[in-house]
Amino acid sequence: MVRKIVIVGGGCGGGTAAQFARKTDRTAEITVIERESYPQYSRCGLPYGISGIIPDLTNLIEAPEERMRKNRITLMLGTSVTSVDKEKKVVHLESPSKKIELPYDSLILATGAKASVPPIRGVFKEGGKPYELKQGVFVLRTIEDARGIQSLGYKGKRAVVIGAGLVGLEVAEALMIRGCKVTIVEYLSNCILAMVDDDMAQMMAEAIAKHGVKMFTEYEVIELLGDEKANGVVAKNRKTGEEREFYADLIVVATGQRGETDLAKQVGCSVGVTKQIVVDDRCLTCVPDVYAVGDCTEYPDLVIGKPYVSGLGTIAVKMAMVAGVNAAGGSDHLPKGFLITRATEPFGCQVAAVGPTLQQLELAGIKPVIGKVRSFTLPDYYPGRKEIYVKVLVHPDTGKILAAQIVGEERVHLRINAFAVAIQAGMTVDEMSKVETAYCPPAAPTIDPITIACEAAKLKLTRATHSP
Amino acid sequence: MVRKIVIVGGGCGGGTAAQFARKTDRTAEITVIERESYPQYSRCGLPYGISGIIPDLTNLIEAPEERMRKNRITLMLGTSVTSVDKEKKVVHLESPSKKIELPYDSLILATGAKASVPPIRGVFKEGGKPYELKQGVFVLRTIEDARGIQSLGYKGKRAVVIGAGLVGLEVAEALMIRGCKVTIVEYLSNCILAMVDDDMAQMMAEAIAKHGVKMFTEYEVIELLGDEKANGVVAKNRKTGEEREFYADLIVVATGQRGETDLAKQVGCSVGVTKQIVVDDRCLTCVPDVYAVGDCTEYPDLVIGKPYVSGLGTIAVKMAMVAGVNAAGGSDHLPKGFLITRATEPFGCQVAAVGPTLQQLELAGIKPVIGKVRSFTLPDYYPGRKEIYVKVLVHPDTGKILAAQIVGEERVHLRINAFAVAIQAGMTVDEMSKVETAYCPPAAPTIDPITIACEAAKLKLTRATHSP
Repeated sequence: MVRKIVIVGGGCGGGTAAQFARKTDRTAEITVIERESYPQYSRCGLPYGISGIIPDLTNLIEAPEERMRKNRITLMLGTSVTSVDKEKKVVHLESPSKKIELPYDSLILATGAKASVPPIRGVFKEGGKPYELKQGVFVLRTIEDARGIQSLGYKGKRAVVIGAGLVGLEVAEALMIRGCKVTIVEYLSNCILAMVDDDMAQMMAEAIAKHGVKMFTEYEVIELLGDEKANGVVAKNRKTGEEREFYADLIVVATGQRGETDLAKQVGCSVGVTKQIVVDDRCLTCVPDVYAVGDCTEYPDLVIGKPYVSGLGTIAVKMAMVAGVNAAGGSDHLPKGFLITRATEPFGCQVAAVGPTLQQLELAGIKPVIGKVRSFTLPDYYPGRKEIYVKVLVHPDTGKILAAQIVGEERVHLRINAFAVAIQAGMTVDEMSKVETAYCPPAAPTIDPITIACEAAKLKLTRATHSP
Repeated sequence: MVRKIVIVGGGCGGGTAAQFARKTDRTAEITVIERESYPQYSRCGLPYGISGIIPDLTNLIEAPEERMRKNRITLMLGTSVTSVDKEKKVVHLESPSKKIELPYDSLILATGAKASVPPIRGVFKEGGKPYELKQGVFVLRTIEDARGIQSLGYKGKRAVVIGAGLVGLEVAEALMIRGCKVTIVEYLSNCILAMVDDDMAQMMAEAIAKHGVKMFTEYEVIELLGDEKANGVVAKNRKTGEEREFYADLIVVATGQRGETDLAKQVGCSVGVTKQIVVDDRCLTCVPDVYAVGDCTEYPDLVIGKPYVSGLGTIAVKMAMVAGVNAAGGSDHLPKGFLITRATEPFGCQVAAVGPTLQQLELAGIKPVIGKVRSFTLPDYYPGRKEIYVKVLVHPDTGKILAAQIVGEERVHLRINAFAVAIQAGMTVDEMSKVETAYCPPAAPTIDPITIACEAAKLKLTRATHSP
């Protein structure tokens, strides 16, 4: 009998799951149902569509319809799932033209997330639909969102970005490139604190300042000004209570996201402490034959073992590979937890990290030994070398690498992968310090910055062990 | 009592050993004896001194005398060791000015290697000193060698490089950049076959051709023409027997190196199958308190376990770190074997590899499963992405990663480090395929090329397992 696989959500999670299901079962009937009107595209690429580096937003489409057809995957765009009958194993759809019942053997929920907008006074349209943003206020999650931002024009416009996380900074840079005068307002004490520790984030803060973009940290946005159209932001200093107003032609709210779990709850899937769908290492929910992947799920991180919501495309894809194989009758599983490898590079500052931040480790009761070094990307004698900072966080008892953070102007991102492998393998900092790294004068120094950081941590570990 | 550490050889091995000895014992008397007249410099940087990318050869000096002084390391330049009395634990020196006896508690031999010149007819100066090269013939091992090449001038000169290994190609590129008309003659069927397999080397061969440099493979150089001064090369096709003459103003012999082991043998250190000094995982030779590091030693590779001579600066440095610590009373050790991580990037073609080549594996009786993919350095939608080829060699029974090779125009070298960590950790290709790699549109795709190669190998492994 032909296996029927239904996938709800056609983003990178759903799309990848469909591909891996197809690889596993050449004859299965695979259907992907997508609410939006575009086939799988890269959300992470949206800021580069805004900046113009990617000339057209539709370039972001990663799995065009003809490729899906070639793989015999049915793609239903502009189509919503209204409900699932888990007893009859049927999905009820509502497309613009008709209502459909779709039977399934395996169901994969890849419903993703929506931008999470805090209930700031004046952020929503008065008398609008629920959560409808006021004119001039945007989030950046979809191609339509990006088109909305583009529709305002850029040159000379004043833009306020609320939130200095990865998305906030990438949007801020894009608007700056387009000629906007950009201000960033951040609730915490520094930018990108979900990615790296404060000391490493400081280099990004300096890069932002160097580009003429003003960033106000420790400011809570308490109100959006303007009646029909938002035209400013009121923010309050969390320490002094001082209030500031920022005038704006354009406001982007980049304060995180929240998983789309309504359908999953209706099906009977459990949600966990993070309010996202709980899955096991096969990406199976508690409902038989129902899998879930990506931004709508939670899964432990490998180091602390605490349920985590990453929102990362990489993780959605890793989960989708596993779910796709399992849903198609194969057998695959996730590691015990995720590494949360993450990277960004706005304002000419490259940042990459893996594993928990120092704060997250301390909250979990681990006080790591830290090896942190300032080094260079190339040998001292080679022209054009750049500064690079590497920080490695090590378990004080076992010497195992728990996390790493790297910041610099170049050659940062791929260096973090070596740490990602080391953490997944449970390697100690001593073992890691002995790995022979690639050396080539125009590419990397004999003793790589990652090795120097490990040596620094080793020295501290030895001292800690020898001290009374 | 103050510990006395004597180090013979002031290259990257000796210099690094001195530094790590100093870190371990703040009071030891540390002496480095160097035959050449320059403090520690980068031999790997010499081609970039020839090309002019590094404006002056003395820029290559990595540990200037003032830094050594600051670390209270006595550096004796232009000084040779004549003999060692291992019973009395004394080193006999001959410097230009005087003879000296130097007692030691620990002795580290970091004597390096010399260029290995095959006994081609006409390569040595008639009536010259032993192994003195004929005028117009060069090797590239020292700053003096590089000065010799520079002294001939470049623009419009015809240069023949014998040997298309890493050094040969880097010299060939440097001479090309300087305006020489360069021809490369290689004995084997392709360039860089000690680094990568033939299929991966082919991309380098194409890059060489694209730059207008002629390479003749499968040609054995049988004679150097010219009386006083060499002015050409006669090479014979190893298959057809056809002979060709290449006229040359300048001939560089880049056919490998041979460890400097004379002193070690005099001391009584064992040499192994490769004729290099045998050391244990503490870098200790068979003579008490005598250590050896770097190009004059042999040590097993991790994957096959066969004694190996790498000639790599990275390995010299790794050994020197361990020897320096142990010689100073600390305790450190090498992994069970080396990964032989290697990298180069002449002619705009980046090559990096780790672990044995396919041929080396097959000679050891291992027939690996191969995952090889052509992919891209950036997401499909991001402008400027380049082709990249990744090949991973996997043990057919255990699924463990044995080796990896990467070739491309950019972002190659740091990718190999992830494989280096994986091999050192004994990771399977399945585990490696699940490592979350850094993703960021301007830096790397969601599914990294290294993951795609692992997935390809996994698929073949599964098929191999399931086939009857």
